[in-house]
Amino acid sequence: MTTSLSPDTTTTSAFDEALHRADLVAAELRATAAERDRANAAPTAEIELLRSHDLLQVGEPVELGGSGLNYAQTQQITRRIARGDTSIAHLLGYHYAQQRIAHLFGTPEQAEALSRRNAQEKLFWGGVQNPRGGSGLVLTRDEDGFRLNGRRTFASGAGVGDQLSVTATFGDALVFLSLPAGKEGFTPLGDWDNIGQRLTDSGGVEFVNTPISRDEILGDPDSPPTFTAFQQLVTPHWQLAFVNFYIGTAEGALDEALDWTRLNASAWETSGLEAATDDPYILELVGELRAEITAAVLLADRAGDALQHALDIGEALTDEQRAVAAVAIAEAKYVTTKVSLDAASRLFEIQGARATTTDYGFDRHWRNLRTHTVHDPVAYKAREVGDWTLNHRAPQFSLYS
Amino acid sequence: MTTSLSPDTTTTSAFDEALHRADLVAAELRATAAERDRANAAPTAEIELLRSHDLLQVGEPVELGGSGLNYAQTQQITRRIARGDTSIAHLLGYHYAQQRIAHLFGTPEQAEALSRRNAQEKLFWGGVQNPRGGSGLVLTRDEDGFRLNGRRTFASGAGVGDQLSVTATFGDALVFLSLPAGKEGFTPLGDWDNIGQRLTDSGGVEFVNTPISRDEILGDPDSPPTFTAFQQLVTPHWQLAFVNFYIGTAEGALDEALDWTRLNASAWETSGLEAATDDPYILELVGELRAEITAAVLLADRAGDALQHALDIGEALTDEQRAVAAVAIAEAKYVTTKVSLDAASRLFEIQGARATTTDYGFDRHWRNLRTHTVHDPVAYKAREVGDWTLNHRAPQFSLYS
Amino acid sequence: MTTSLSPDTTTTSAFDEALHRADLVAAELRATAAERDRANAAPTAEIELLRSHDLLQVGEPVELGGSGLNYAQTQQITRRIARGDTSIAHLLGYHYAQQRIAHLFGTPEQAEALSRRNAQEKLFWGGVQNPRGGSGLVLTRDEDGFRLNGRRTFASGAGVGDQLSVTATFGDALVFLSLPAGKEGFTPLGDWDNIGQRLTDSGGVEFVNTPISRDEILGDPDSPPTFTAFQQLVTPHWQLAFVNFYIGTAEGALDEALDWTRLNASAWETSGLEAATDDPYILELVGELRAEITAAVLLADRAGDALQHALDIGEALTDEQRAVAAVAIAEAKYVTTKVSLDAASRLFEIQGARATTTDYGFDRHWRNLRTHTVHDPVAYKAREVGDWTLNHRAPQFSLYS
Amino acid sequence: MTTSLSPDTTTTSAFDEALHRADLVAAELRATAAERDRANAAPTAEIELLRSHDLLQVGEPVELGGSGLNYAQTQQITRRIARGDTSIAHLLGYHYAQQRIAHLFGTPEQAEALSRRNAQEKLFWGGVQNPRGGSGLVLTRDEDGFRLNGRRTFASGAGVGDQLSVTATFGDALVFLSLPAGKEGFTPLGDWDNIGQRLTDSGGVEFVNTPISRDEILGDPDSPPTFTAFQQLVTPHWQLAFVNFYIGTAEGALDEALDWTRLNASAWETSGLEAATDDPYILELVGELRAEITAAVLLADRAGDALQHALDIGEALTDEQRAVAAVAIAEAKYVTTKVSLDAASRLFEIQGARATTTDYGFDRHWRNLRTHTVHDPVAYKAREVGDWTLNHRAPQFSLYS
Repeated sequence: MTTSLSPDTTTTSAFDEALHRADLVAAELRATAAERDRANAAPTAEIELLRSHDLLQVGEPVELGGSGLNYAQTQQITRRIARGDTSIAHLLGYHYAQQRIAHLFGTPEQAEALSRRNAQEKLFWGGVQNPRGGSGLVLTRDEDGFRLNGRRTFASGAGVGDQLSVTATFGDALVFLSLPAGKEGFTPLGDWDNIGQRLTDSGGVEFVNTPISRDEILGDPDSPPTFTAFQQLVTPHWQLAFVNFYIGTAEGALDEALDWTRLNASAWETSGLEAATDDPYILELVGELRAEITAAVLLADRAGDALQHALDIGEALTDEQRAVAAVAIAEAKYVTTKVSLDAASRLFEIQGARATTTDYGFDRHWRNLRTHTVHDPVAYKAREVGDWTLNHRAPQFSLYS
Repeated sequence: MTTSLSPDTTTTSAFDEALHRADLVAAELRATAAERDRANAAPTAEIELLRSHDLLQVGEPVELGGSGLNYAQTQQITRRIARGDTSIAHLLGYHYAQQRIAHLFGTPEQAEALSRRNAQEKLFWGGVQNPRGGSGLVLTRDEDGFRLNGRRTFASGAGVGDQLSVTATFGDALVFLSLPAGKEGFTPLGDWDNIGQRLTDSGGVEFVNTPISRDEILGDPDSPPTFTAFQQLVTPHWQLAFVNFYIGTAEGALDEALDWTRLNASAWETSGLEAATDDPYILELVGELRAEITAAVLLADRAGDALQHALDIGEALTDEQRAVAAVAIAEAKYVTTKVSLDAASRLFEIQGARATTTDYGFDRHWRNLRTHTVHDPVAYKAREVGDWTLNHRAPQFSLYS
Repeated sequence: MTTSLSPDTTTTSAFDEALHRADLVAAELRATAAERDRANAAPTAEIELLRSHDLLQVGEPVELGGSGLNYAQTQQITRRIARGDTSIAHLLGYHYAQQRIAHLFGTPEQAEALSRRNAQEKLFWGGVQNPRGGSGLVLTRDEDGFRLNGRRTFASGAGVGDQLSVTATFGDALVFLSLPAGKEGFTPLGDWDNIGQRLTDSGGVEFVNTPISRDEILGDPDSPPTFTAFQQLVTPHWQLAFVNFYIGTAEGALDEALDWTRLNASAWETSGLEAATDDPYILELVGELRAEITAAVLLADRAGDALQHALDIGEALTDEQRAVAAVAIAEAKYVTTKVSLDAASRLFEIQGARATTTDYGFDRHWRNLRTHTVHDPVAYKAREVGDWTLNHRAPQFSLYS
Repeated sequence: MTTSLSPDTTTTSAFDEALHRADLVAAELRATAAERDRANAAPTAEIELLRSHDLLQVGEPVELGGSGLNYAQTQQITRRIARGDTSIAHLLGYHYAQQRIAHLFGTPEQAEALSRRNAQEKLFWGGVQNPRGGSGLVLTRDEDGFRLNGRRTFASGAGVGDQLSVTATFGDALVFLSLPAGKEGFTPLGDWDNIGQRLTDSGGVEFVNTPISRDEILGDPDSPPTFTAFQQLVTPHWQLAFVNFYIGTAEGALDEALDWTRLNASAWETSGLEAATDDPYILELVGELRAEITAAVLLADRAGDALQHALDIGEALTDEQRAVAAVAIAEAKYVTTKVSLDAASRLFEIQGARATTTDYGFDRHWRNLRTHTVHDPVAYKAREVGDWTLNHRAPQFSLYS
């Protein structure tokens, strides 16, 4: 079930070009981010923007029509997009992760077929996986085929995806499904209205007696995943996406705040200065946030390298090696969470009172980060790092670690 | 120009009753705060609620029909209201401060007349004072009377006030005006739409050739305020209001988050626990926030005592005594700002992901605090405390200190 | 077993006088604190200093020859002394706590007799109580009397005390002993050499077959303490002492650092300023530390009031009331620990490089605080506050809570 | 005046071998660090240890007998040594920086001759440069030669160096001297007794009429340095050393604390756990510190790369390029300062009360870091980062930036 993708097919130039396209998209998204945040519509136009800039298929092999970026590189794209819009980066980061599921749990044929379709059709993937909040989805046999039933919450992108990645229980086992949009009996509930990540289409979904064919089940349903160390890398795929859109958000928020400050801020009355940009406390705070963000960025890069290294080892991956990757991501998760939240809140101290006008929408950064950074408690991520460091106990595999 | 109010006319029981009424109002406001925050309407119903619970005139003498609370006590009312709604507490805190202006800058007759009207008519005061953002207001002579012209931003409550407290330049001097609502040539611009404190009606206002009569000018326009140490207490009145609605917000947000947690939170999957309320990290965080908030509350109480002590001294107040009060408030401002923002953001880590649903509106606490805590830079407040502590240099009087 | 002391025998003036004497002692101690810290001798001269300034018996009734201060007031003395020397404040704070043991666990006759001796002989109390680090002490019957055997570590003041307060197991029960110095078979091990609190004489002690008479056992050995809610106040006595010598240390360290700064600091080269005392970052930091320390002081005062209120209730104290006192102290413990450690470390940023000269000994503040603040983990104190706040579960009685 | 060293002569294996030797030395130093810290002797044995492990000449070209490491690589050696002993790392980091002075300010012949001697004689360099604290050193002409007079403080390693790097004023200019030990009229004052960095021999020195020959002056005294952008890299050499020994100290302190914890710590009484290493708060704290330290390490690496990149450009370096390197180092300085101090203090919360025994000497980490991190105020480093980020204003060259 390993992937046939070899990372050395990635040319630096393909990566640079993809980053450049991402920067263009991020700039376009940023210009309207506050307005779209308020409108709270389904992110269909935004997904088209990603598609039209060839950002959906970058992680697929060159020979199939992708850009051949490795997984860590795709999450660098996520980070760039987050500089413009954290919701869309969330969707894209999840999308890249969903695309790897078939390579972890599918047959080689399934993996290749889906990669081919991803590359050629530029499919956008949504997902139905978050295990919190409900009894979950159940797959059962039904004559020659299967049926899927149940509800899930927090199904990011499931309402707008061309293809859905779904996890369900099948007897005692967990199975992974790959379904096209528009399946009979599938209903997105459209109930996502949260304080942040508003454009992530993360509401609940329902499956009622949805027919599932054999080939929509990744791998062999009669021989469900044993979760090898390599397959246990599934969770770190998501955690790496989180890390990248957290810190990308902080990078974008800082840029945006400083641009605004240069144009709009005025010196504090009692400072005796001509310009806000000479204020000692503003300069100090900018420097502190800049330095903290740079450090967190480096940790995010390192986390990407660690996961990619583990992925490159493939099925031979040991538990120890899996732990090293998971812990590197946990370290980055702890620091990027702290730094990005702090920056998103403190930037207002650089800008001053006028920056609180709703029209600017500068509060969306804190709201976006606050919403997603409680996806799973960061205290437990710190604990995992501590347990590894102190006791050499590996993070236990779950849908959060 | 001193006040004839003696604080000893305040009975504990009048104060307790006022606090009790404030608690009822706060509970009523909290129940609808998220919804009203989204609706962003003018706070007329809320002001009626304050009025109907006899909270507008509590700071006026008993003999005139008030409750005889001293100024520090009125700001305790502000704090209670902030537990339910920070916007309305802001309006009320400012209102109490505006009511004292005539006692600082008016003739004894003006002060008494306005106190009498405050008590009997339960006037709600708005203000036009924030000096940031425009050329300001100019008062000029016009035949037997005066004319007022100009624009101001951030005029909290000016659109809904029964009476307006206005500062304007008159030649080289600053004068204080007390105007009834609905003056000719006065237009609230209705342009307040900010990320927080949404119900404070803090938009811009315009005066075009508004006729002003002699008695609407506090004191003698030909002998404008010299700003004695006692009169320089005007700014600390506002700063004390800030301190109280910051920390009251944190108190309310904590209560609200814990209520929600008890009812709704579920134990973290990997914690091995039955209940979120047994989680070691949640318990630690609740304890930390509780302790920090308690400390900040005590500092706010001390700040109130310090200002009240200075007010009770009256016109004999020395520069040194004024500094002591101003610095006590600055200490409280620094700590309440830090603690309340931190609590408003971290409470989500106690509650978890479900608490980010827009419907709950739990993000309003951070938005409210973030909006108002950049009213004036808290770094300069720390600096003032430092300059007094290290160099015994008093905070320089301004409209921020 | 209640005390006959009534707090209303305390006159304000006796308290003020005691505070004044404490200030004199603190000043004298500060002048030599760095030198004595390096010398690491037994604190006999320091105890004589406390005795000669009539600080040992202040907590005993006026009618017996004390000053009639209540317990919270005595710990205010501890705080004052900590401004000059944290070790000596530790000894004194523990001493005041030891003096209350007979009033919690002794018969009224024992309590009165010991109070009388405390007042008349100005006894200094050491203690042998810390349960960490050894099998502890065992009391056994021996013919008509008793024998005490065992070792203990961290026995603050046991080597220099005139009287020792000792806890031992007696069968299944815990008993409290009050022993004169110099008992047969008692040996202080003189092995205290730690990075901080160096003058606290906190080494180990050994009892080998020490004969114990019936009246040296507080209360009735055949009817050992049941630990009523009132008796469970024993631990908060110590925790309140900690709170006070932590924050007193921070107050003293700040004063000392600012005095030094005014005399010795020079402006930073690239600041463009004439004087370090005008540096914006120094002023901000002084202000931040000053405000944080003030807040912590208020919390320490509140903790003292809470314990005193519980003590004043006496044997009728309910579990709920005991919890309220314990939690107030835990809040103060969390904040004073954090604030005092932070101040002790950051003060060097105000003073600059020259302040690191060993001769000044400014590092002793951090060393003292760091040493004692790990007496029991502050995370568990935060947890206790959280458990009470969230779940209304009272801190469980132990020798730490 | 450029160097002939080309970084590509460095083989990875030479670097790896040097790192390995550094690890051996660090382990040896750690074993005795606490004891040597207390003894406060001159670090002659330690320098011999560095010399005997071939660590003094690693930065010189292979063809001259060095290991050909580039400057950034030498500071990685500094970091490794800091894991064992911060004082010795300080001496070594300064030593590497002093060795580059001739390559910045000397003639090519001087640079090569000194590099040759460094490599062959394994010279240890001390320095007399710190401009704070005295009128400084003055070079004057004296018949055919020159004379040096004056005093300086904080002359790290000057008392034990084989060769001294000295800055002095010569008329209006600043000149760099390279002097052998034992010059006539030179006296180290032996007055270094500070709370940390005790083994750095950083006391004052005095020159009284010391004869200086023409060739001891780097470059041409009649044409003193113009301080090109490339020459202005002199200060970042030191700042990079600081960054490395700060974060190396934190790495070593963490390792040491965890080793101790695994062997010695016991579970907290009220935790209900068997082992301290299972404590949720200990695990969380270990994880937090580990993650923060990793982030700071990455920032230190990036700072090294930035300076090395600038050095590799050579004399063509632009002001902009110099700024990029200086700012990268300033970012690392801010973060490593904060993280390392925090770790050094909080590690005790992992270990508990027994770890405060003087014998372990665990407090030396905080004392070492606290002493050196006030070398220059970190607030100004944050300000420099902020000024570059917000205003694109480069850090002004000084002996601190």
